[in-house]
Amino acid sequence: MNIIRPTLILDEAVCRNNIRRMAQKAAGLGVRFRPHFKTHQSVKVGEWFRDEGVTAITVSSVQMAEYFAAAGWKDITIAFPVNILEIEPINRLTKFSKINLLVENAEVVNFLNDQLDSPVDVWVKIDTGYNRTGIGATDFVLADAVVKAAAGSAKTNLKGFLTHSGQTYQANSIDEIMRRHFDSLLKMKNLKNRYGGMYGNLEISMGDTPAASVCENFSGVDELRLGNFVFYDLMQQNHGVCSFNDIAVKMVCPVVAIHPSRNEVVVHGGAVHFSKDYILNTDGKKMFGRIIIEKEGQKVLMDTMNYLSALSQEHGILKVAQSQLQNFYVGQLVEIYPVHSCLTANLMGHYYTTTGERIEMMPKF
Amino acid sequence: MNIIRPTLILDEAVCRNNIRRMAQKAAGLGVRFRPHFKTHQSVKVGEWFRDEGVTAITVSSVQMAEYFAAAGWKDITIAFPVNILEIEPINRLTKFSKINLLVENAEVVNFLNDQLDSPVDVWVKIDTGYNRTGIGATDFVLADAVVKAAAGSAKTNLKGFLTHSGQTYQANSIDEIMRRHFDSLLKMKNLKNRYGGMYGNLEISMGDTPAASVCENFSGVDELRLGNFVFYDLMQQNHGVCSFNDIAVKMVCPVVAIHPSRNEVVVHGGAVHFSKDYILNTDGKKMFGRIIIEKEGQKVLMDTMNYLSALSQEHGILKVAQSQLQNFYVGQLVEIYPVHSCLTANLMGHYYTTTGERIEMMPKF
Repeated sequence: MNIIRPTLILDEAVCRNNIRRMAQKAAGLGVRFRPHFKTHQSVKVGEWFRDEGVTAITVSSVQMAEYFAAAGWKDITIAFPVNILEIEPINRLTKFSKINLLVENAEVVNFLNDQLDSPVDVWVKIDTGYNRTGIGATDFVLADAVVKAAAGSAKTNLKGFLTHSGQTYQANSIDEIMRRHFDSLLKMKNLKNRYGGMYGNLEISMGDTPAASVCENFSGVDELRLGNFVFYDLMQQNHGVCSFNDIAVKMVCPVVAIHPSRNEVVVHGGAVHFSKDYILNTDGKKMFGRIIIEKEGQKVLMDTMNYLSALSQEHGILKVAQSQLQNFYVGQLVEIYPVHSCLTANLMGHYYTTTGERIEMMPKF
Repeated sequence: MNIIRPTLILDEAVCRNNIRRMAQKAAGLGVRFRPHFKTHQSVKVGEWFRDEGVTAITVSSVQMAEYFAAAGWKDITIAFPVNILEIEPINRLTKFSKINLLVENAEVVNFLNDQLDSPVDVWVKIDTGYNRTGIGATDFVLADAVVKAAAGSAKTNLKGFLTHSGQTYQANSIDEIMRRHFDSLLKMKNLKNRYGGMYGNLEISMGDTPAASVCENFSGVDELRLGNFVFYDLMQQNHGVCSFNDIAVKMVCPVVAIHPSRNEVVVHGGAVHFSKDYILNTDGKKMFGRIIIEKEGQKVLMDTMNYLSALSQEHGILKVAQSQLQNFYVGQLVEIYPVHSCLTANLMGHYYTTTGERIEMMPKF
């Protein structure tokens, strides 16, 4: 493959390995695996999940559900609070696939009961500490109302409780990831126990990439919905959740200028390729990526003295140790691990495999 | 227009006004207007520039040059250091349009002299303090070498010196924008004087949105290349560079959940719509957008106690003053001013006008 521009390379072997390992882990634990497809957004990568026996998936929008339903996926959870303005496309979707929805108030349940053409499974969205969406895990007044409405509605089948414990992404250690995960699980089990007697067998759906990667005990969890693990990224590596060898995507960027006076190298590869998500480097500054270069025929990961330090629309600036400057030249291709693979993939819109095959993603909007 | 999803609305009247005002300002000052098209990335919006007499443009990549050349633009500066790996598409482009390139070292000039099919104008890229790309404005050893190479090469016509004074974006006041601009201009004039005697009439190209919007004196500048002004955004408004009424794009987002216990409202509209660029709010926290709601039939801009405070992939979180919560409801459409219109437009990939017309942008990669 003749790369001349910023190109997102997907290593199929690494990616399939990530999928297989997690599918086997879920199977071993007896937990349903319902991976989130928002990271890869690709029918082709979806097939690699099918190869591991996956039949149920999660998506983050109605449009993404449409894309994967058209590719033959028959059991899709839209893990985003129902947007009542999208009732028409939701009704269309239910004719092709089993669609599962998230609710967090009685008002939307009543709207669904009124407007849905046919019944769907609904999960009550719980906030276990991420503070993004969902009913507070101990806010029983709200929970009572929505559970009662969902169980009593002819068009909604109350499936259970669902949470995204995104607070694990901000944890500073593996121990803290586990603590936050088990704290969430405790809250979810409490809800299941509280309402299980009245409404039959209610399930628990959770599972973010950090917790699902590092925890070995998912007792009490019925369904795992993680997504980022398919590629992982620098953020996860930095959290100790994966190793560099597990990161399945790298951006290849051409070097366009060298600035020895500033110890900087300019690459084509900017905010429209990587996204502006960052982690903090060992020097306390924003880091947008780690650099891999070829030395004597070997790919070498450079240390944190050398990193992608700034992004504008098309430009990326590599901070480089003075002693390393000699390893860079105009016209060189460097590889860069992205900080947040979900947003990077979303911006690029397609991948190339290491063998040069182009893999398409969901078309934009 | 029936909006059910995050939708980027472009107000044609405001946008045309921004274009007209700047075109007239440049004409009044006797400066060539070569607007940067990386913000809007749209052939249709480009036509609004043609209506104001614009014939010369700037783009940020070879692919963007291809897109606008195909739409009939005949004079295009690619304002990014030449990526020598793209020599083939550059040679193709020169058959259709006058293409102007940026160089910052003799090595690339020699490469162009060797590999270009036909001569092009080249600008020597100068760093006047933004520290992104270009030769330091007083680094005369490097400048001598590249100027001499460009002037002596049969395939490159030395046009002059070009800078992007992006440091004006970080200025804290109008006075500081001006100071930084005139500081840059002084350095550019010095270069023009230094080499003008030897190499004939060399030009100065500069002009970022902050400086071009607030300065009235561009004496000595031959060409203005600003881009963001076509839409402006919250970052520019926050810098005092434009008013809210000058911002030509707004994101319309459906409300999907209300969380009174946290004084938060959840909208569909996340990092894949807005980008993760932020400014600091009056409370010192990250702000990703300002909110406009309808009250008694009037559109009202909410104060900074109410703002887009967090983004994940698809979710946006509005922090809302307790007293304002009553103005929000599930299924409502709110309008949000984006922080950085260039990155927001790039993510969305198209616009709708206020009258519901869809406007396409450059296809992704």
